[in-house]
Amino acid sequence: MNLVPQTHSTESVAKDLAAVVPPHTLIADTETQVVYECDGLAMYKQPPMITVLPESVEQVQAVMRYAHQSGIPVVARGGGTGLCAGAMPHAEGILLSLAKFNQIQHIDPLARTAVVQPGVRNLAISEAAKIHNLYYAPDPSSQIACTIGGNVAENAGGVHCLKYGLTVNNVIKVEMITIEGDEVVIGSEGLDSAGPDLLALMHGSEGLLGVITEITVKLMPIPERMQVVMAAFDDVTKAGNAVGAVIAKGIIPGGLEMMDHFAIVAVEEYLQAGYPTEAQALLLCEVDGTPAEVEEHIAAVTQVFEQMGATSVRISQSEEERQLFWKGRKNAFPAVGRLSPDYYCMDGTIPRSQLANVLLKMAEMSERYGLRVANVFHAGDGNLHPLILFDANIEGQFETTEEFGGKILELCVEVGGCITGEHGVGMEKIRQMFTQFSETELTQFHAIKAAFDSANQLNPGKGIPVLKNCQEYRSVGGA
Amino acid sequence: MNLVPQTHSTESVAKDLAAVVPPHTLIADTETQVVYECDGLAMYKQPPMITVLPESVEQVQAVMRYAHQSGIPVVARGGGTGLCAGAMPHAEGILLSLAKFNQIQHIDPLARTAVVQPGVRNLAISEAAKIHNLYYAPDPSSQIACTIGGNVAENAGGVHCLKYGLTVNNVIKVEMITIEGDEVVIGSEGLDSAGPDLLALMHGSEGLLGVITEITVKLMPIPERMQVVMAAFDDVTKAGNAVGAVIAKGIIPGGLEMMDHFAIVAVEEYLQAGYPTEAQALLLCEVDGTPAEVEEHIAAVTQVFEQMGATSVRISQSEEERQLFWKGRKNAFPAVGRLSPDYYCMDGTIPRSQLANVLLKMAEMSERYGLRVANVFHAGDGNLHPLILFDANIEGQFETTEEFGGKILELCVEVGGCITGEHGVGMEKIRQMFTQFSETELTQFHAIKAAFDSANQLNPGKGIPVLKNCQEYRSVGGA
Repeated sequence: MNLVPQTHSTESVAKDLAAVVPPHTLIADTETQVVYECDGLAMYKQPPMITVLPESVEQVQAVMRYAHQSGIPVVARGGGTGLCAGAMPHAEGILLSLAKFNQIQHIDPLARTAVVQPGVRNLAISEAAKIHNLYYAPDPSSQIACTIGGNVAENAGGVHCLKYGLTVNNVIKVEMITIEGDEVVIGSEGLDSAGPDLLALMHGSEGLLGVITEITVKLMPIPERMQVVMAAFDDVTKAGNAVGAVIAKGIIPGGLEMMDHFAIVAVEEYLQAGYPTEAQALLLCEVDGTPAEVEEHIAAVTQVFEQMGATSVRISQSEEERQLFWKGRKNAFPAVGRLSPDYYCMDGTIPRSQLANVLLKMAEMSERYGLRVANVFHAGDGNLHPLILFDANIEGQFETTEEFGGKILELCVEVGGCITGEHGVGMEKIRQMFTQFSETELTQFHAIKAAFDSANQLNPGKGIPVLKNCQEYRSVGGA
Repeated sequence: MNLVPQTHSTESVAKDLAAVVPPHTLIADTETQVVYECDGLAMYKQPPMITVLPESVEQVQAVMRYAHQSGIPVVARGGGTGLCAGAMPHAEGILLSLAKFNQIQHIDPLARTAVVQPGVRNLAISEAAKIHNLYYAPDPSSQIACTIGGNVAENAGGVHCLKYGLTVNNVIKVEMITIEGDEVVIGSEGLDSAGPDLLALMHGSEGLLGVITEITVKLMPIPERMQVVMAAFDDVTKAGNAVGAVIAKGIIPGGLEMMDHFAIVAVEEYLQAGYPTEAQALLLCEVDGTPAEVEEHIAAVTQVFEQMGATSVRISQSEEERQLFWKGRKNAFPAVGRLSPDYYCMDGTIPRSQLANVLLKMAEMSERYGLRVANVFHAGDGNLHPLILFDANIEGQFETTEEFGGKILELCVEVGGCITGEHGVGMEKIRQMFTQFSETELTQFHAIKAAFDSANQLNPGKGIPVLKNCQEYRSVGGA
């Protein structure tokens, strides 16, 4: 499956491409291409051989046909905000930026769907749908900048995904171009489709299977009312158990977030959101719906938190106060970032029942590695975001951080969870794929990849590890 | 991809299998195997060469390894209630019945999941979870008899799937055995999993990719309250538009069903559910949730129906009345069945906005073909179940029925829908796959199939049509 790169000069490829797409869509000079050398995980850097910014589906098809005939790798790129180096370019490859595919093509308020191009920003969909009192539910923190194509590629999540699902649960149809340059339609405008269900397969596929050129998303009615309960706990175990108790009660909140003591203090010092700095853990639980529904659920959530031993419970009494409660959570990453030259944001998922256990084990590891960790995460769906603080200028500290991060992911697998919640595998977590999956399973993944791209030209080196590296990885930092 | 069947005698295969699985798990005599010759779509019949009823995962692995080495086809079978001949045996193949995989292995009320074997009946899961006040949401009409393994194989739906999703939305993990006999785990107990998302691919895969041996499903809290609004309309267009208006209002009912005049009259004659026989269309809209939520939504739904021109609206005032309202809908198939020697139940899905249009066009076709059609369907999710009435004893009438049915499915595709909602493709709709998909798409499906089963041994002839048949099918009855 490994691509043996053919030797192509940038000049010859630029000349060939200029024959099939307009020359102004090409960027071949090194200086301009520096902006494309990494995505949001800037530790992984590699400028591409050449960048193309196609303006039509036909141009994408032409680029793919050319790449396929010439054996040149293709890496697709959306907003460049990804956090697993999934969009890091290939040194000998074409970087295919979908930046010009930025049109919202159609909004159907009756069907509650929007047809959009992949380069449309996540938040732009909700902005355009607002006139119909609708919005697009998945809300990654980067939603102001990240694109819907990238959201599909990494199956992006966000605070609201507990109630409304990940990207995969909010997309009903995609059109994509195969490496051969053919157009394939996956899913339908109806609520079901015949044939093998490839729609979920495209989600989180990190550009390994094809290049998406059109996406039809579901829209949701904007909730009539939203209200937040903020509860403090003197013990992370109690807070972790309270999360499970809310869900066990039959309530699916709009969002259910947790912060540990370190994160609470960092946030409060940074922007004074009114968080109780003595607390060991803080839960923010948002309830949305009709006024009657919200009232009933807020009362039930408050009761659960009190029963589970909360030391204080506050309910937002106005929209301003709701925003203030969220302000701290939303700025937790920069707040923690202020306290250290560098930080590394991890992304793992665990069963809700394991929250307290995993937090305690992480604290032990933090001591062992001599690196501080702040925890800010989507507790309701068990999606952890430990932030490891380090200083890249101290010799070897990044390597220790990477090893610590790897151990956290392995802990997630050990307790029945997985190595990513919403950031994806990309380059970053490729060695942890050996922890998560057996050789039989990885062989199956390669077969699936080969069913779309037998020459391994689409985003090679990402997502699915090469089997022969297994032993090597395990001996370096793996299981 | 076509399997060239090797010539094996039943005797030699029985002998070989008896060496790898206990002899009492084998059925080789023709008489006993008659019960396995078809599933719920009895027009398609074929006894298997040999039947195996394995009792452990190891035995399934042994059968698969033997079949793989010997080049013998394998068809898996659950409850045998399928409606697309997806479980019809192969004349030269092994029928692998999962009937003995009937244990509920674990229910976790905190995580709200159940781990079950594939031969467990759909309804048995809810019965076992009831003690925790939980249930399994997808409810195909056959839920008393159909098995969860078959539900996954066909991605089964039901009345509650509008609000709670199809089988694919309610399963988080499956364990399956590949044709090579290897065990593969797909999905996880957490809310996300790394690697290519193959979980949806397994749903509706009709036994073409592997044999599932364990399924972890999500459980939902039993709603505190349920209430039904029954609305009559003097015009199908008004009723169709009322369905869209409820959803556009932001309400996702627990169920939203529609019946046409023919079906209403048939039901009322059969069991006197109190349906208004003068109505051209009847809507049944169930709302579930907390008491406050139900009260609010019932009022809103009633208002929408009145605004959309309902001639009468009734709200169930007790649990007995709610059951009575549903009784007619649930017995609509036998009620219609009384009026004709035979009937053929179709299954197509369309965008909600096309409901009225498609009903009117079906009425035209009914006249043209000289065959009566009753319509009983899941209106909320656009899933039609036209029942074509015919008499198999009249020469050529089944063929006319099949052609009419095919035209209905093509109409579904034409308006942006698809050829199946919940019954699957199987043998039945294999020619309509050419209407739904391009050659590029079908080629991709074959590549996916080959990634799991390159020798095409798993349920050959179902689900994905052989490309070279395209011309032939199109000239017979296709597009």
